[in-house]
Amino acid sequence: MRIVPFGLLKSRTLTLLELLVLAVGLAAMTAMTMPDLSERARAASSIALWCCLALYLCELLIKAWQQAGARAKYLRSSAGIIDLAAVVPVPLALLLGVPANIAWLLAGLWILKLATLVPGLAMLGRVIALEARALASVIVIFLTILVLSGVALHALEGPLQPRQFGSLPLSLWWAVTTLSSTGYGDAVPMTFLGRLIAGLVMISGLGVFGLWTGILATGFAAEHRRRDFIRNWELVTQVPFLKNLDPPAVIELTRLLRRLDLAEKTIVVRRGRPGDCMYFIASGEVEVKIEPHPVRLGAGAFFGEMALLTGAARTANVVTTQPTTLLALEVADFHTLTAQHPELARAVAAEAARRTGGATPHVAHAHAADDKRASR
Amino acid sequence: MRIVPFGLLKSRTLTLLELLVLAVGLAAMTAMTMPDLSERARAASSIALWCCLALYLCELLIKAWQQAGARAKYLRSSAGIIDLAAVVPVPLALLLGVPANIAWLLAGLWILKLATLVPGLAMLGRVIALEARALASVIVIFLTILVLSGVALHALEGPLQPRQFGSLPLSLWWAVTTLSSTGYGDAVPMTFLGRLIAGLVMISGLGVFGLWTGILATGFAAEHRRRDFIRNWELVTQVPFLKNLDPPAVIELTRLLRRLDLAEKTIVVRRGRPGDCMYFIASGEVEVKIEPHPVRLGAGAFFGEMALLTGAARTANVVTTQPTTLLALEVADFHTLTAQHPELARAVAAEAARRTGGATPHVAHAHAADDKRASR
Amino acid sequence: MRIVPFGLLKSRTLTLLELLVLAVGLAAMTAMTMPDLSERARAASSIALWCCLALYLCELLIKAWQQAGARAKYLRSSAGIIDLAAVVPVPLALLLGVPANIAWLLAGLWILKLATLVPGLAMLGRVIALEARALASVIVIFLTILVLSGVALHALEGPLQPRQFGSLPLSLWWAVTTLSSTGYGDAVPMTFLGRLIAGLVMISGLGVFGLWTGILATGFAAEHRRRDFIRNWELVTQVPFLKNLDPPAVIELTRLLRRLDLAEKTIVVRRGRPGDCMYFIASGEVEVKIEPHPVRLGAGAFFGEMALLTGAARTANVVTTQPTTLLALEVADFHTLTAQHPELARAVAAEAARRTGGATPHVAHAHAADDKRASR
Amino acid sequence: MRIVPFGLLKSRTLTLLELLVLAVGLAAMTAMTMPDLSERARAASSIALWCCLALYLCELLIKAWQQAGARAKYLRSSAGIIDLAAVVPVPLALLLGVPANIAWLLAGLWILKLATLVPGLAMLGRVIALEARALASVIVIFLTILVLSGVALHALEGPLQPRQFGSLPLSLWWAVTTLSSTGYGDAVPMTFLGRLIAGLVMISGLGVFGLWTGILATGFAAEHRRRDFIRNWELVTQVPFLKNLDPPAVIELTRLLRRLDLAEKTIVVRRGRPGDCMYFIASGEVEVKIEPHPVRLGAGAFFGEMALLTGAARTANVVTTQPTTLLALEVADFHTLTAQHPELARAVAAEAARRTGGATPHVAHAHAADDKRASR
Repeated sequence: MRIVPFGLLKSRTLTLLELLVLAVGLAAMTAMTMPDLSERARAASSIALWCCLALYLCELLIKAWQQAGARAKYLRSSAGIIDLAAVVPVPLALLLGVPANIAWLLAGLWILKLATLVPGLAMLGRVIALEARALASVIVIFLTILVLSGVALHALEGPLQPRQFGSLPLSLWWAVTTLSSTGYGDAVPMTFLGRLIAGLVMISGLGVFGLWTGILATGFAAEHRRRDFIRNWELVTQVPFLKNLDPPAVIELTRLLRRLDLAEKTIVVRRGRPGDCMYFIASGEVEVKIEPHPVRLGAGAFFGEMALLTGAARTANVVTTQPTTLLALEVADFHTLTAQHPELARAVAAEAARRTGGATPHVAHAHAADDKRASR
Repeated sequence: MRIVPFGLLKSRTLTLLELLVLAVGLAAMTAMTMPDLSERARAASSIALWCCLALYLCELLIKAWQQAGARAKYLRSSAGIIDLAAVVPVPLALLLGVPANIAWLLAGLWILKLATLVPGLAMLGRVIALEARALASVIVIFLTILVLSGVALHALEGPLQPRQFGSLPLSLWWAVTTLSSTGYGDAVPMTFLGRLIAGLVMISGLGVFGLWTGILATGFAAEHRRRDFIRNWELVTQVPFLKNLDPPAVIELTRLLRRLDLAEKTIVVRRGRPGDCMYFIASGEVEVKIEPHPVRLGAGAFFGEMALLTGAARTANVVTTQPTTLLALEVADFHTLTAQHPELARAVAAEAARRTGGATPHVAHAHAADDKRASR
Repeated sequence: MRIVPFGLLKSRTLTLLELLVLAVGLAAMTAMTMPDLSERARAASSIALWCCLALYLCELLIKAWQQAGARAKYLRSSAGIIDLAAVVPVPLALLLGVPANIAWLLAGLWILKLATLVPGLAMLGRVIALEARALASVIVIFLTILVLSGVALHALEGPLQPRQFGSLPLSLWWAVTTLSSTGYGDAVPMTFLGRLIAGLVMISGLGVFGLWTGILATGFAAEHRRRDFIRNWELVTQVPFLKNLDPPAVIELTRLLRRLDLAEKTIVVRRGRPGDCMYFIASGEVEVKIEPHPVRLGAGAFFGEMALLTGAARTANVVTTQPTTLLALEVADFHTLTAQHPELARAVAAEAARRTGGATPHVAHAHAADDKRASR
Repeated sequence: MRIVPFGLLKSRTLTLLELLVLAVGLAAMTAMTMPDLSERARAASSIALWCCLALYLCELLIKAWQQAGARAKYLRSSAGIIDLAAVVPVPLALLLGVPANIAWLLAGLWILKLATLVPGLAMLGRVIALEARALASVIVIFLTILVLSGVALHALEGPLQPRQFGSLPLSLWWAVTTLSSTGYGDAVPMTFLGRLIAGLVMISGLGVFGLWTGILATGFAAEHRRRDFIRNWELVTQVPFLKNLDPPAVIELTRLLRRLDLAEKTIVVRRGRPGDCMYFIASGEVEVKIEPHPVRLGAGAFFGEMALLTGAARTANVVTTQPTTLLALEVADFHTLTAQHPELARAVAAEAARRTGGATPHVAHAHAADDKRASR
């Protein structure tokens, strides 16, 4: 049996519930820290906190119970650690005699729950791991500037402003606020040489973080592209029409398609709008709203191609009837692809013709609806 | 009938007028808030504000009247909401008895009119929608650092600086000013550990916004490219010469062309300048200033290709005679294209020769003018 | 006769001289503003300022005299305006009776001379022109956030902090310092709602400038690539060997080559270093330091290819004997190119063999020197 | 004999030791600057500093001794200068009679040792050298804004705030803190015009550093790609299977492979995980943990290809048995490559079949293990 640690949270309702519990919990914790809170509000916050704690405990127990054979593994996973961190520290601190107002601050760890609700953080971690070497050299530059400027300012400004630069930790504090361009203004050099160095530090700071930004951005873009390809590839294999194209065309398509996960009753195509995309249905179903007989298209079908071929506006609304995954192909990419792989255009036309030929007249109708040129 | 909600504003004069009204309105509103304003200036500002309000009301009524059948749709569109937001809130507030100086602050909503005057904001919205998932994970990281550092600083600095860190909202305020590298300096940690955490927050802040920047920038670049392709494609189909090339060459060209929307009497090509582009005329007309007989070229023609082929300087000015849309092809792209698609070079040469052959001697003249090598 | 407005400044010595004059001038102007300057230093500064002014006047006159036929054109060009701005304002202000210490501040305009000494600023302007539309929508967002947050903070904080938020200009000042993440700390919101809005403004500010950065960076990269291509193309046509390759290979090469403008006596290749490049000589001359008979290679020759083919280290120093322009081809690009265009590898090998065959024995020697595998 | 200045530091243990010495040294130096340090701690710090100095002296002597013939060259290299800078300045200052607490501040130069421990800094230097021209034009813009705004603010604010803007150096200090968005808040303009200019300076500052960031980021990405290619190329030539493919496929592969340097006993592939990569072994050895007979694969072999071909999960752990260098090929890149170069897919399949055929049954086993579809 494959382990699904978050099967419990897959549904959208549960995710919203988790977010609500988190918001209530953090709000209550925040309220507890305010000195001028009324007694009643304090009591209400306290109850809210205990409720959240109870809910998180339930969640932990349900998850652990669900994963009968893999309990230890779950508790050692990052999800398990986050779930434990939500439940254990506060009671432990209270037991150890820490005052309640301090102990409840540990509920701040609940914010980590957010990470389990949002996908994509793992990707971020991977980018950082891949670019570790480049990021490390940026950190070295950062530290070098930090220490050298800290020492220099300590030597230059220390005798004049002992409270701001009188020791190296103090002037390193100045250096970090300056190098990150935060600039609190609690420590400001006064000598000419000190200000000259400070100016250079500010400029270097921006250069350093420009590098940092550039490396992260480049890495993130590459990783994004890679993940999209893998996810699209899986979906393309579910559309027989796509899978049977020439391999280079399939690869090119997989790169260009954009996945759309739509809820039930979402309008995909709006009547009268310019046609900028065609869609392949990877899973689910859509309804083409043609009067008097709406048409339904299921997984493996495609629609909206006529608008690309003719440049016409859409002539009917298309709405999902259930949660549906579509693969959208932009008009620009469609033209590029068909120029390089004319067989794709032919295949799209043939498939459309085949459908119109009688096999599935309803679908043909759907295409016909798309075909009428809108009076733009 | 297709709905053109902003047909009224298409003209450049009307756009400038709108900007003027907006500037006057906002300036008057600003003046009203200044306590030491003279009575006369205050009266003038008041009159200006009422005039702007009246103009915006007129605009709303004209637009609603224009769209006879689609009034409700217009009022529910984002343009309609902005138009309503410019007209309704101020009178409503005055009717509800809000003091005039407060009520008129709602005229600040007029700034939203800017969004309807500048294209490209829709694109921005689309980028954000497409990258929503990646941006969401950045926000999660942001919130996590915010809460954790806020809690930590409240615990560490709260007892020492109750006015700055004495409650969680206060230390969250510190955290957000620090994480965004704004650094007002109204709250500054004093303990060693607090400053260490603050340093890490500053560095993380730059990392987080590096990611944010990277994601937005990448998405924006991709969307830009896509939109340019669609707009160019439409224009390429208006130039018969281009439309009849091999499909792969057309696609490549469409990617490489740069659209230029020029006003009347704009100088496109300057005599004596190096030739870095050739131009296709999508719509409008240009005049090649050759003495004694200037030559006019209309939609579908091209000019400036000789400079690319010979590397010579331009030998005549070329000026638009009416609003003209050109498609420019850079010398670098021209060479790349003709290397990959030699038929393009042949087609350009043939077309030039055909024209010189007698059909349109004036055009031939234009090309000849371009041909003379400038004494560089 | 082609006009060369800066022919005067082309030489490196003159550029350094210009920089020196500029530095002296600005330093003297700076000194003049310092209240505790000694009388003698003040006199010296004054003399320096007058000398600089005289030099700039001479420069203007020489340039205008040089361009006999195009004087008016030069004075209307950006270079001419900068030259005039350096000479006219100060004397004019003095004549109009402005006190000397104020009048000399106009010497700050001399900094504009820098722009004429550094190439690449024109490119920057072009990028901004090309991306104007995208940048405009960022400015619209910026202004919208600025006005809305300024109005909101004026309403919320105005009554509490009249000196910081009491009028709209004051709270717009706060908004611009916050939105740009400068954060002077002279105006800080105090109400809960004000701080919430401020937090959002900070985050939006970073988002807005992320977009700005992204647009500029993307545009700059594209423009850079385009300009390099044009400059390389010109040079490639000066190397017969390159010009005679198949067109697609030439284009690919032009994209990949990196131009190096070297001064006399620069070491291009160092003995014992790994071979990461081969070089084509576009103009100038190099000397291969082989004992006992150094070899000279002129324009059109190439060297360093053996290191790419064999992965060996360099076996001789190569030094320029005069200002030389080289086109460098990286090892990675060389392998990519030769895989796609095997005729290139064959041509390089054939050319090397032809030379070794006797026509130019010295050159052959140079290649042989490169051939010996270094004991790595 | 090739010189290996850092042969001594290649091992990971030595690197960690260097980092430890550096950390201890800098911590001791920091402690020395704190005025309220106890006598005993001061003495301990002093001893730690002298020990570090002694260690760095030893390192210098060992390195110099190792490089018998190239001592002078080593001492002139950047590594040698860093080593000298760690050893010479402190004793020299003490000899010259500088007080100990000042002299020891020169130990801050030890931070430069970091640069020798982290690779990739040379690359950074190269990027800056290559983009020097573009970066120079950014610096020109920066200086121009700096001087012009400094002069303007001095003229506008000088009379009102002589302590903040009374001389040009003072107002340049304001300009640099504002332009870099640091914003200490020690000098804030008060006049309307001054604040308007300040607002423009802030916005320009962000624009300027956006350019700076963009240039550095673009250059860094290109250089990264180039260096990876060179490193991969070297490794690809060590895998006979790869080297014998068609040249275009080899080049493409070299671009796409990602180098992984793994320590002993690292888990490369985990049982049950989706197969997202295949691996070529450039050097070292891995063990495929199949029960009951684990299989070992050495340099030149590949594994994990079945997961790519079938989309199945991994069915066995793969662990390195010694320090190993792998070349990973992502699933997305694998599909792209095999679509463009079908011979690669055939070669992979043939090689796998050949192995299964009997030559190395253990390896066949390994592949078979990979083949079983995981019950996902």
